[in-house]
Amino acid sequence: MSLNSFFKPQSIALIGAAHSEEKLGGVILKSLLKFKGKIYPVNPKYKELMGLKAYPSAGDIPDVELAIIMRPAKEVPAILKELKAKTKSILIMSSGFAEIGETDLQEEVKKIGKESGFRIVGPNCMGLYNPYHRLDTFFLPEERLRRPKSGNVSIVSQSGAILSCIMEEIRKANTGVSKIIGYGNAADVDESDIYDYLSEDEKTDVVISYIESVGDGRKFVEKAKALSEKKALLVLKSGKSHGGEVAAFSHTGRLAGRYEVFHSVLKQFGIQEAGDFEELLDASKALSYQSAKCKDTAKGCNRVLVITNGGGSGVLAVDECVKQGIEMPKMSGAHKERLRKVFPPFYGINNPVDLTAQVRDEDYAAALRELKDDYDGFLLIALPNVVGITEKLGRIMEDAVRDLNKPVVFYVSEGGISKKLISLLERARIPVYPSPERAVRAIRALLIHT
Amino acid sequence: MSLNSFFKPQSIALIGAAHSEEKLGGVILKSLLKFKGKIYPVNPKYKELMGLKAYPSAGDIPDVELAIIMRPAKEVPAILKELKAKTKSILIMSSGFAEIGETDLQEEVKKIGKESGFRIVGPNCMGLYNPYHRLDTFFLPEERLRRPKSGNVSIVSQSGAILSCIMEEIRKANTGVSKIIGYGNAADVDESDIYDYLSEDEKTDVVISYIESVGDGRKFVEKAKALSEKKALLVLKSGKSHGGEVAAFSHTGRLAGRYEVFHSVLKQFGIQEAGDFEELLDASKALSYQSAKCKDTAKGCNRVLVITNGGGSGVLAVDECVKQGIEMPKMSGAHKERLRKVFPPFYGINNPVDLTAQVRDEDYAAALRELKDDYDGFLLIALPNVVGITEKLGRIMEDAVRDLNKPVVFYVSEGGISKKLISLLERARIPVYPSPERAVRAIRALLIHT
Repeated sequence: MSLNSFFKPQSIALIGAAHSEEKLGGVILKSLLKFKGKIYPVNPKYKELMGLKAYPSAGDIPDVELAIIMRPAKEVPAILKELKAKTKSILIMSSGFAEIGETDLQEEVKKIGKESGFRIVGPNCMGLYNPYHRLDTFFLPEERLRRPKSGNVSIVSQSGAILSCIMEEIRKANTGVSKIIGYGNAADVDESDIYDYLSEDEKTDVVISYIESVGDGRKFVEKAKALSEKKALLVLKSGKSHGGEVAAFSHTGRLAGRYEVFHSVLKQFGIQEAGDFEELLDASKALSYQSAKCKDTAKGCNRVLVITNGGGSGVLAVDECVKQGIEMPKMSGAHKERLRKVFPPFYGINNPVDLTAQVRDEDYAAALRELKDDYDGFLLIALPNVVGITEKLGRIMEDAVRDLNKPVVFYVSEGGISKKLISLLERARIPVYPSPERAVRAIRALLIHT
Repeated sequence: MSLNSFFKPQSIALIGAAHSEEKLGGVILKSLLKFKGKIYPVNPKYKELMGLKAYPSAGDIPDVELAIIMRPAKEVPAILKELKAKTKSILIMSSGFAEIGETDLQEEVKKIGKESGFRIVGPNCMGLYNPYHRLDTFFLPEERLRRPKSGNVSIVSQSGAILSCIMEEIRKANTGVSKIIGYGNAADVDESDIYDYLSEDEKTDVVISYIESVGDGRKFVEKAKALSEKKALLVLKSGKSHGGEVAAFSHTGRLAGRYEVFHSVLKQFGIQEAGDFEELLDASKALSYQSAKCKDTAKGCNRVLVITNGGGSGVLAVDECVKQGIEMPKMSGAHKERLRKVFPPFYGINNPVDLTAQVRDEDYAAALRELKDDYDGFLLIALPNVVGITEKLGRIMEDAVRDLNKPVVFYVSEGGISKKLISLLERARIPVYPSPERAVRAIRALLIHT
C-alpha cells in the first residue's frame, strides 16, 4: 500500500482538536486550515472548532483518508478501535510510548493496527508536511517554526527536534521541500516504507534522512539502495557511539545497533552518509541546486579544478580535495599557453588557478571557458575584499554555468560585498559555502551523486 | 632581538608612499595616519604626501625604528643598502620574490639583511597590525577589509589572503585582536620568532597560526611548545597533501615538507592543530572568551555534561564527544534523585539531560547548579522554537556562569529567537555554535588548553 493517503489525503480527521493555539491540538487544527480537502475535528466539549463542525468522538466522523491522533497515550488504543471502519491511515502524534519505556502500550497499538489493516505513522512524532498539497500537521505554530517553501528536497526524520532544525536550515539555504515526515517511534511505517514512496515521487530530487535506529536492516538496505539509484539520498546516522546509542534509545525507544556494521553496509551498497549535521545540510543544498546538472557526468569521474583569488585558501581546498579522494589533474600545456596569453604574467596558471589579489570578475569565466571540458567539477573561491571582485561576478557566473552541465560550487569569504555576491550566486543556483573545506565536501557530494 | 620595533615602533618610514589610495603605497600611508608616532613617507615625485613632508629617497630620511618597503622587487636591494645606517627593522611588503621563482633576488635580500644587521619581515606579505599601538600597515582600505577591534587573539599568517579571511571571521565572532602579522615568504623573521615574541606579550591569550611551510623544524617545535605552555596556540597547517604542497610552494616559495611528520611532531609535543579553517575559528572564539575560566581545571580532565531540549541534537553531540575522546560520565544516583524532584517526570535525567520540548529557561541553570562539581565542561543545546525558551535564558546563563570556572559552550539552532539569544549569550562570553558537532569540537579545544 502506498503512502499516498498520508501525503495527499482528500479528507482528514483530527482526534484531539482544540479551540485555541494554547493547546497542541489547537495548533495542529490551525495548521490544517490551509488544507483544501475536508477536515473533521473531534472534541466532545465543542460543537464547533475554528469555524468547523466538531464531532464528539472518533466513532462519529464520516470515513476519512487520514486520521490524526493527538490525545494522551493511554487513550490511543480505544480511539484506534473506534476508527476501525473509518480509515486506513493513522498518524499518532502523541508521545508517552516506547520512548519512555511504555513498550507494552506501543505493542498494543501495533497489534490493533495490524488487526484493523491500518498503516500507522508515529507515535511520538512531528507528522507530515506537503506544500504541494497544502498539508501541514505540525504542532508548532508558524511563528515558532517557519515552514520552508516548496522545492525538491524531502526530509525523513525520526527525531522531531532534528526535523525542525533541518527545516530552518533549509529555509536559510534558499532551498525548498517536497515532502517532510517526522516518523518518531516507527511502530509501523518506517524509513524504508518512506524511501519506497519517495523513490516514485516526481517532485523529490533529494532525500535527507536522519536515523537513530533501524528496525529491519535487510529491508532498509534494499529500499535505501533502490532510492539512491533514482534520487540523491543523504543519510545522517546518530547513536554511533555506545553513549550515543543509549541516548538514542531513551529518545525513541529503538535500539541503535552497532554503528560500524551500519556504516560498512551503507558503504558497500553505495548509500551516501553525511559526516555530521552541517555536512548533511551543505550537501543537500548543493544537490537541490545542481543534481539535474550532473546527470551527464559519468560515474566515478571526479576531476576537480580549483580557481581562486587567494593562494592560501586554494591550498586549503586542495588539501581537502585530496583528503576526500577527489582528483586534481594538472592543466595541459596547451591550456596553459592559451591562458598565459589572456592573463597577467603573475597569475598562477595551474590547478589551482591563482588569480591573485589583482583578479578581475571576468577571469573566473575565462578560466572556466578554457578548461570546462578537462574537468568534471569546478570549485571557485572568491575573497571579495579586493577591488577586482564586484557584484558583476554574480551575472557573469550565471551566464557561465547556464550551458555547463557540470557541478560548480563557490567558497566566498566573509567581508566586502560577500552578502550581496552570495545572494546573486545562489539565485543562479550556484551553492556558496563559508569555508574552502565545506565547499570541497559539497562538490564531492555532487560528484558522488552523478 | 625582540620584535618590539615591528609591533610597537616610535617612528616609521614608508618607502614607496603614494599620494592616492589608487596605489597600494597610498593605501598603506592612509592606514599609517592613525599611528601616533613619527611617519616619514618616501617618494621622489612629491614634497608632501597626505599632509606629511615627503622625502626623495630612503637615504634622506632620519633614523627610524621601522622601515616599510612597497616598491617593485628589483629595486629592493638598493633600497636596503640606503637604509643601512637608518634602521634595524624592515618590513618588505612587495611581492615578486621566491613565490614567483625569483629565489636569487630573495637570497640577495637575505644577504644584505644579514650584513646590515637588519631583521626583515616579508617579502610578499600583508604586514602588521597592533590596535593597542594604532599600528596598521595593511594595503587594503578599511572599506575592503574592516579592522577587528582590540582583544586577546593574535594572528600569525604566512598567507595574506587567509589573514584577511581570519580577520573578517574574528570580527563576526565578537572577538578582538592583540597583534596581527602576515609574514609572507619569511626570508628572515619566521613563525618561530613571532611565537617567541607573543609568548611574552601580555595582551595575547590566544595565538592563531596559519602555516604553509616551516623553515627550521627544530626551532619551530621548540618555540611552538614554549608558546603552548603559556598561551593557547592553534596551528592550521596547509599543504598537507602532495597536491597541496605544490600549490603552497608556488604561493610562498617555501617547501611544505611531509605533513605526516609535521602532524606527529605536533601531537608528540602537545601543540594543538585545527582540522580545518572553520575549526580554527571556532576554537579561537571559545578560547578568546573562556581561556581564563579554565585555568583551575586539572590537565587531562575532560568530563562533559550535555544539557539539551532536543533529543536528536543531544545524540549527535554525544556521538561527536565520543569521537573526540571526550568522556561523558553518567549522572550519580543522588543527583538524579534531586533533579527528579525539581523536573517534570518526562524529562530525561541522565547525560545528556533531555529537557524536551516542554523546557523552561530556568531548567538549564538548575541542571548546571546541581551538576557543576561532577563535570569539567558543559555543552548546552537550545532549540529556540519552543515557547519555553525566551530571551531570559541569556541573563540566566550570564548569572549561572559568573562564578563557574569551567568551560560552557552552546549550540543554538536556527529559527525562533535564535539571533537575539546568540547575541545575549556571546555578550556574556559564552560561545555559541550553529551545529552540535561544532560546539563539541569547541569545548574540546577549551579542555585541551586548560
